[in-house]
Amino acid sequence: MASPNPIEYSDASIEIREIYDEIKLARGIQDVSNFWIYMANDPVTLRRTWTSLKESMGPGALDSLTKELIYIAVSATNNCAYCIRSHTASASSKGMTDAMFGELMAVVGMAVAVVATAAGTRRRLPHEMLALPLPLAAGNRVFRLYLIHI
Amino acid sequence: MASPNPIEYSDASIEIREIYDEIKLARGIQDVSNFWIYMANDPVTLRRTWTSLKESMGPGALDSLTKELIYIAVSATNNCAYCIRSHTASASSKGMTDAMFGELMAVVGMAVAVVATAAGTRRRLPHEMLALPLPLAAGNRVFRLYLIHI
Amino acid sequence: MASPNPIEYSDASIEIREIYDEIKLARGIQDVSNFWIYMANDPVTLRRTWTSLKESMGPGALDSLTKELIYIAVSATNNCAYCIRSHTASASSKGMTDAMFGELMAVVGMAVAVVATAAGTRRRLPHEMLALPLPLAAGNRVFRLYLIHI
Amino acid sequence: MASPNPIEYSDASIEIREIYDEIKLARGIQDVSNFWIYMANDPVTLRRTWTSLKESMGPGALDSLTKELIYIAVSATNNCAYCIRSHTASASSKGMTDAMFGELMAVVGMAVAVVATAAGTRRRLPHEMLALPLPLAAGNRVFRLYLIHI
Amino acid sequence: MASPNPIEYSDASIEIREIYDEIKLARGIQDVSNFWIYMANDPVTLRRTWTSLKESMGPGALDSLTKELIYIAVSATNNCAYCIRSHTASASSKGMTDAMFGELMAVVGMAVAVVATAAGTRRRLPHEMLALPLPLAAGNRVFRLYLIHI
Amino acid sequence: MASPNPIEYSDASIEIREIYDEIKLARGIQDVSNFWIYMANDPVTLRRTWTSLKESMGPGALDSLTKELIYIAVSATNNCAYCIRSHTASASSKGMTDAMFGELMAVVGMAVAVVATAAGTRRRLPHEMLALPLPLAAGNRVFRLYLIHI
Repeated sequence: MASPNPIEYSDASIEIREIYDEIKLARGIQDVSNFWIYMANDPVTLRRTWTSLKESMGPGALDSLTKELIYIAVSATNNCAYCIRSHTASASSKGMTDAMFGELMAVVGMAVAVVATAAGTRRRLPHEMLALPLPLAAGNRVFRLYLIHI
Repeated sequence: MASPNPIEYSDASIEIREIYDEIKLARGIQDVSNFWIYMANDPVTLRRTWTSLKESMGPGALDSLTKELIYIAVSATNNCAYCIRSHTASASSKGMTDAMFGELMAVVGMAVAVVATAAGTRRRLPHEMLALPLPLAAGNRVFRLYLIHI
Repeated sequence: MASPNPIEYSDASIEIREIYDEIKLARGIQDVSNFWIYMANDPVTLRRTWTSLKESMGPGALDSLTKELIYIAVSATNNCAYCIRSHTASASSKGMTDAMFGELMAVVGMAVAVVATAAGTRRRLPHEMLALPLPLAAGNRVFRLYLIHI
Repeated sequence: MASPNPIEYSDASIEIREIYDEIKLARGIQDVSNFWIYMANDPVTLRRTWTSLKESMGPGALDSLTKELIYIAVSATNNCAYCIRSHTASASSKGMTDAMFGELMAVVGMAVAVVATAAGTRRRLPHEMLALPLPLAAGNRVFRLYLIHI
Repeated sequence: MASPNPIEYSDASIEIREIYDEIKLARGIQDVSNFWIYMANDPVTLRRTWTSLKESMGPGALDSLTKELIYIAVSATNNCAYCIRSHTASASSKGMTDAMFGELMAVVGMAVAVVATAAGTRRRLPHEMLALPLPLAAGNRVFRLYLIHI
Repeated sequence: MASPNPIEYSDASIEIREIYDEIKLARGIQDVSNFWIYMANDPVTLRRTWTSLKESMGPGALDSLTKELIYIAVSATNNCAYCIRSHTASASSKGMTDAMFGELMAVVGMAVAVVATAAGTRRRLPHEMLALPLPLAAGNRVFRLYLIHI
């Protein structure tokens, strides 16, 4: 089966190699991951993604470790093995302890449980409480408007 | 802003009206919901979706109430207000009590919490345990193979 | 790369060993799964999760098999291999037949299809039908209020 | 651990074999994938799913390649390795180039980023702007109605 | 349409009222939200959820504000309006500034973009590199084993 | 309840106004949406997001309409009302017909159904077929390695 090809360092353009070099230097790794070598099929996206990642993950109003914890939370919620693995390593290198990781997982588990249960228990207002003064019939159609109270 | 138009009963073809009639009869409602009148822009999908719904939700190896509970679980997990509202009503009409709904939400909440936490704690095998006898270097590339143990 | 460490039985505190023993006894297994040995980094979460799982999955207004089916439905929706594997085994041991599993998958597939399509076809009320008597302009800003009809 | 069994070609009923044959012919493959041989535990779902797939993926108002790109987008959003692999192959056979795949991933990445950020920044109307003329108190309960502006 | 009923304070058992009182005191609010009054149909789940929330969100190895940020990240990823609203308020009361919220959304947006793109670009090892020494043919079936490199 | 504040045009810095002006011009709208005025709390993210959106949605190897269809597919999968509304309008203005929208929804519905069902039917290789020649016991722990065949 044909499928998109990775762009290896040896086959990459100078522009792409520059980004690969920057990633390798920043992360202290020998070789960029698959994520990047496939993305290099679209050099504009490669450049933009790497720049965005640097900008959004660097320290600012939030410190770098907090940002890594947030990143892991989103990755766990979305079940992304690659993301969890690489950002758990980053977080550990920035000071995440086993106890912090344990509490992070506890918060993530709690949050998704509430999200799903809150969705299930969201209810519409009973009809007799609505009495909406809106012109909800128009032409040959009566609209069914449900206001959700959350 | 232009957007796809609903196909009202009065404007619908005979083929579409027949499906609308079937839905109204089966559900004991006066008017089909927005879900169907927008889907009617593609009559083949309208027919297929209604037929599939009848087939998959009817009693078989699982009874109808159990199927409604499963449907609500998926709808709550995906935060679909329309789906939750309409299938909570169906489940109630088939015998779902408040206590059953409460336990349903408890299971859904538990399951999503485990899902997210299990994703977060999925770990690769340490390198020293792999020693894979696979020809993982090919040409100019050394593959990074991570076996996940779950 | 550093990452959180599993807490093996031999290295575990007495408190953690008690929970491990309880899990092994309840499930009839030789060794607790990775899910638990990583979670043990936060003993409070370990205790709470196991207690919650027992409480929510035990028979009540819903029987245990129905709860397992609901759990599998959520796990499949969220693509959790570990969860599907372990609860498919539980459901089988409680009487789930191949035909029941087939119908379970059919309901799950149907539900997610409706969820996504319902989201796509949710439309706002046309402006000319709103005529909302709300003071929606405040200070220097005119609010854009869209009532969704679902 | 017991779990549902695949229905191999050699063990399949004539009805199931006919569908297997149709899938193999349509896709030019020697053997149907696991997805189908497990689904065959529910022959009605097997028949319906294959028919639905043929109907919805064939050329119509949208051409087949565009439909494959949409399918990959949904599969990537949901992190389904099997789906991505099989439909990336289909899309490639229908003319998807590496550059097209690169842009597809860029759009998917952009869309999910906006989805999550839009969810986070969705805000309710300030109370002083609502002054809703609705009878929102009923009996012993005052309803908390929040209108979301999006 | 019948649907599960909320348990109002005035109708609640003493056990449920105690939990309601605890929630109101802890949050400084006049009335518990819909989330809780529907959940009260299953008092065991109500008690467990409130206790779990207190345990997992209190300060520990991670401080309370960091936990609120993680909670918002998961809520935004899952598009839960109720959760975002209530925990944005909590985070603000614990010191989240507008700039911190802005960076939080930036990290969430970045993370989901990488998650989806990484899923799309995950590739199998080419067949000629596998040459797996596993007895992958068994009985009348040849297994298709794909090792994913991530 | 305190929460992050929107940055109105009249209160915005010159840098932010320039981006607002660019968005209004490009989209032919009078006022930028809430999504942007909240994001403006982090001007770096505002600039990056708008630039990324322009880059990734403009015509390239894929035309603009195809990109809008892909965007709607992701938005429907993630149930984002704001995203669906704004990109359905964009797609309509670029030539999306009602029939094309109908088929788009059909593909999305089909894809998510297969995604969830494929997850549910993913199975491990039976133990007797593995016989892995890996040193999977290390120290005091026997690893449980499951190879998934998909």
